[in-house]
Amino acid sequence: MTSTTLHTKRLDYKPRRPDIFKTSIKNLAYETKSSIKSELTIAQLQEFFPSSIQKTPIRFIRQKQVQKQAKEQTKKITTPLSELRVGVILSGGQAPGGHNVIAGLYDGLKQLNTQSILYGFLMGTEGLVKNKHIELTDTLIDRYRNTGGFNIIGSGRTKIETPAQFESALQTVQECKLNGLVVIGGDDSNTNAALLSEYFIAHECSCVVVGVPKTIDGDLKNKYIESSFGFDTATKTYSELIGNIARDASSARKYWHFIRLMGRAASHITLECALSTHPNIALISEELLNNGSSLKEIINTITQVIIDRAQNGDYFGLVLIPEGLIEFIPDIRSLITEINALLADTRIKNFTTTEKRKSFVQKNLPSKLKEVFASLPSHISTQLLQDRDPHGNIVLSQIETEKMIIEMVNVELNSRKQKNKTVSPEIPFSHVAHFFGYEGRSAFPSNFDSNYCYSLGLCACTLIYNSLSGYMATIRGLANSTKQWEAWGIPLHSMMTIETRKGAKTPVIKKALVELNDKAFRYFERNRKSWALSSDYAVPGAIQYSDDEIGNTITHTLALEFPSPSHKKTQNHTKK
Amino acid sequence: MTSTTLHTKRLDYKPRRPDIFKTSIKNLAYETKSSIKSELTIAQLQEFFPSSIQKTPIRFIRQKQVQKQAKEQTKKITTPLSELRVGVILSGGQAPGGHNVIAGLYDGLKQLNTQSILYGFLMGTEGLVKNKHIELTDTLIDRYRNTGGFNIIGSGRTKIETPAQFESALQTVQECKLNGLVVIGGDDSNTNAALLSEYFIAHECSCVVVGVPKTIDGDLKNKYIESSFGFDTATKTYSELIGNIARDASSARKYWHFIRLMGRAASHITLECALSTHPNIALISEELLNNGSSLKEIINTITQVIIDRAQNGDYFGLVLIPEGLIEFIPDIRSLITEINALLADTRIKNFTTTEKRKSFVQKNLPSKLKEVFASLPSHISTQLLQDRDPHGNIVLSQIETEKMIIEMVNVELNSRKQKNKTVSPEIPFSHVAHFFGYEGRSAFPSNFDSNYCYSLGLCACTLIYNSLSGYMATIRGLANSTKQWEAWGIPLHSMMTIETRKGAKTPVIKKALVELNDKAFRYFERNRKSWALSSDYAVPGAIQYSDDEIGNTITHTLALEFPSPSHKKTQNHTKK
Repeated sequence: MTSTTLHTKRLDYKPRRPDIFKTSIKNLAYETKSSIKSELTIAQLQEFFPSSIQKTPIRFIRQKQVQKQAKEQTKKITTPLSELRVGVILSGGQAPGGHNVIAGLYDGLKQLNTQSILYGFLMGTEGLVKNKHIELTDTLIDRYRNTGGFNIIGSGRTKIETPAQFESALQTVQECKLNGLVVIGGDDSNTNAALLSEYFIAHECSCVVVGVPKTIDGDLKNKYIESSFGFDTATKTYSELIGNIARDASSARKYWHFIRLMGRAASHITLECALSTHPNIALISEELLNNGSSLKEIINTITQVIIDRAQNGDYFGLVLIPEGLIEFIPDIRSLITEINALLADTRIKNFTTTEKRKSFVQKNLPSKLKEVFASLPSHISTQLLQDRDPHGNIVLSQIETEKMIIEMVNVELNSRKQKNKTVSPEIPFSHVAHFFGYEGRSAFPSNFDSNYCYSLGLCACTLIYNSLSGYMATIRGLANSTKQWEAWGIPLHSMMTIETRKGAKTPVIKKALVELNDKAFRYFERNRKSWALSSDYAVPGAIQYSDDEIGNTITHTLALEFPSPSHKKTQNHTKK
Repeated sequence: MTSTTLHTKRLDYKPRRPDIFKTSIKNLAYETKSSIKSELTIAQLQEFFPSSIQKTPIRFIRQKQVQKQAKEQTKKITTPLSELRVGVILSGGQAPGGHNVIAGLYDGLKQLNTQSILYGFLMGTEGLVKNKHIELTDTLIDRYRNTGGFNIIGSGRTKIETPAQFESALQTVQECKLNGLVVIGGDDSNTNAALLSEYFIAHECSCVVVGVPKTIDGDLKNKYIESSFGFDTATKTYSELIGNIARDASSARKYWHFIRLMGRAASHITLECALSTHPNIALISEELLNNGSSLKEIINTITQVIIDRAQNGDYFGLVLIPEGLIEFIPDIRSLITEINALLADTRIKNFTTTEKRKSFVQKNLPSKLKEVFASLPSHISTQLLQDRDPHGNIVLSQIETEKMIIEMVNVELNSRKQKNKTVSPEIPFSHVAHFFGYEGRSAFPSNFDSNYCYSLGLCACTLIYNSLSGYMATIRGLANSTKQWEAWGIPLHSMMTIETRKGAKTPVIKKALVELNDKAFRYFERNRKSWALSSDYAVPGAIQYSDDEIGNTITHTLALEFPSPSHKKTQNHTKK
């Protein structure tokens, strides 16, 4: 890779460290926090996480603090090894900051002992299973500090599921003589980390397994995890583009922009971008599901805003659409379930053309879904009949929901122009469709993500040094000044629930959806009516990396959910 | 509009001024440069630009310099009015920096006399024709300094063509008692400015008309105009996204990204983005036209690179595609001409469905084009049959060329897998399509565009103060330090040629295409073979606005075309 001016400059950026990590890792102890309520039953814990039943959240503190505090609450360090051998895996989709987790981990290990070794497993979990790794060195790490992407060692989506895979992973860990393994990933990868931890303990392998919360989608969060890394940079990149388009729309005054945003399950990205840019409409899947909104109702709502804005002479606007939308709309959800069943019907193999398959499906759907299926634009109903991904899911990123909505709104608008005398037949509806996803996954991490991820790496190192297996490295107090950030370990099993997958009861980390009672959503809810009509857009512009107020903003979501006196500011929104 | 942190900060940015504008505008004189060779004949000049025949380029210099120099070469100022009344128009698509042209113009006018007045005509030339304007004030200007978009007064695409429109424009200028009119626009708008200048002179109206070279496409340039404004910011925004996607591709290692970039006529944007990011393939329309490349050949070339990269285990890559591509490919160009003729055939009205229209076209095409038409993916051949824009052109931005290429490459790759034993049937081809356009047109202007546009505004003011009508405000030496930039006026007619439009001979400014002998293209040509296979991407990252080395880079195109010792640097590309 060829370096650019910013690239060179970012390599030299020194992440801000929380005060806790200004102390040597050797001088840190931890206090245990009151036990947590697991969603798992004792029987389930005994089945899946027998070694973890007693685990509680822990918070790292300085030794001096420890001595001052009541001793029964804290654990002293029993002279652990200072020379550590650790492996690291990047798992799943890219999120800005992954390289900094590795850099923080590396620096922590070398601080403990310059002879410590860090291996990077190549292309995700597959590298662990097949023992494909490289040793990470100063030279290599220094080429990736504060850069985006996962290309230092690559990433992958393989899950460790079969007994043979678990066995191979153990074998690799033993061959490499690892004291620790760090899994940087989303909900599934962290579930995997928890299961590996148990498997190693059950097989008397002392390798500590630690998870790190990664995903731009923002859906890996809970009482303890305030935000997954990458969310900050990705949403700032998307908001840059949305804000630019908003400015363009209010200059040209003739286009409606429909912007679909990455984020399969939850609408956190769309919500954060809405808070950053004030679009006329932002669809939040969780709310639509909660309200039981039909596709028809959604189309009606958008059409009405277009008509209302046209009455002010505003023939332009911005609509944000979460990628996962169609799986949340109740009638489409039912439709997909029925289509899945029909696709499994052996008779469908007799129909060779898409048109014939469509009419087979149309004929065999339950009556109330026939109309929904017929109302879809042809390219969308075609896409719904296409092959599923290996997990049996529709390949969502390939369904152009924004175009579906545009077409259906167009039909509805035309129908109202004809039928409804109060709707002027002159209202123009020119539209542009966008999809933003890959642009934000590998951006240079913002200062926030650079600092956060570096701290997560140091935290993971500290967990390993303290032989705390089955924990997620956690940094808390993120809305405060970096100095005040706290380093925690949260037992992975405490985030789990049991689901039936491929017919078997399996522990999984639940994806955190947008909560309609959360402050972030409620702020949006209070303001959207005025945003719909006012064209009161906000234009955040490109991410700045200067180490000052502009470079150190946090997301609106974090600022709203954790309001606290802080030197940090969210985007300073003031009326101009 | 609600302000954000960066927005607030940008309002306070003080554009760097060239030394020439550190002197009061009143103290500037100008020297005339040797006469230029117009492409127009004397007869044509007499017909269209009778008052301009004697005009030559002029360069502004300080009065002191004037006195030192031979007097016959320079013109003294004959005590012009210092209180000026000026109107300004933003015309055509947005380009970052338009607001700064207005701010520079405004500050120049107020510097001359605080009683000067600047009117902004609303929504482009239409505002002039219909005399819809607002007075620009300190408060208003200060809300738009260094911001993107054209929303301060809006823009439009109306051209002044009919006698009635010229008459209305004159009437507006007289009603507003304007001394000057500044038209900020692309080739067509500047042509309009030249014609308006002549019209006003012919009608004994003393209003000076000045043009300003705007377009993100970069195709308004020539011997005197080094770059149009907005190109710098737009290409940096697109390069940010392309670089991020490149990083993502080399992390995931499984997607080919096909990225279409705005720029209807010329491929300057694609070339600049290629120089910034080192994609595996960048199609330059001008080269394909020059080589007479067929669509089939282009598809073959891309397919071969995919196969070659697969042999290194690289199942990913980046392809940049200029928006205007299909109009440059000779066989598609001929096809479009033939289809245009067939669409004008009255018989086509008998065919009500797309399929029937297609088969009518297929049947009636010249035999060598039948195969080309049949080879196109169905959605593309459908698009080619759709309605033309008001100028009779295909609506290019709606033709998803990137998807056409993906589909045709897929067909070609599969065919080679079957027929060619050296091509492994295992080569995967997963692909993602992108289109970037609107995202970059209204970004916060880079420091370069902020400085450049502010200087253009001051230059336009100085031209008006010196009663120089029919000139384009021009800043030269752009690859040098801002201090050294020169301020010129270039007679608009000197950029013109005569074309037949709507059956009438009309003067037009020729769009500057990518020249295959230019240093920028030749640099690309020398490197593209290695970029095709090496994944040696460059990741420029988001535009930085700090007033330092990172914030003050210039485009590769400018740096290559005007190599000169300078404090400024292009993106510092070094191997890492």
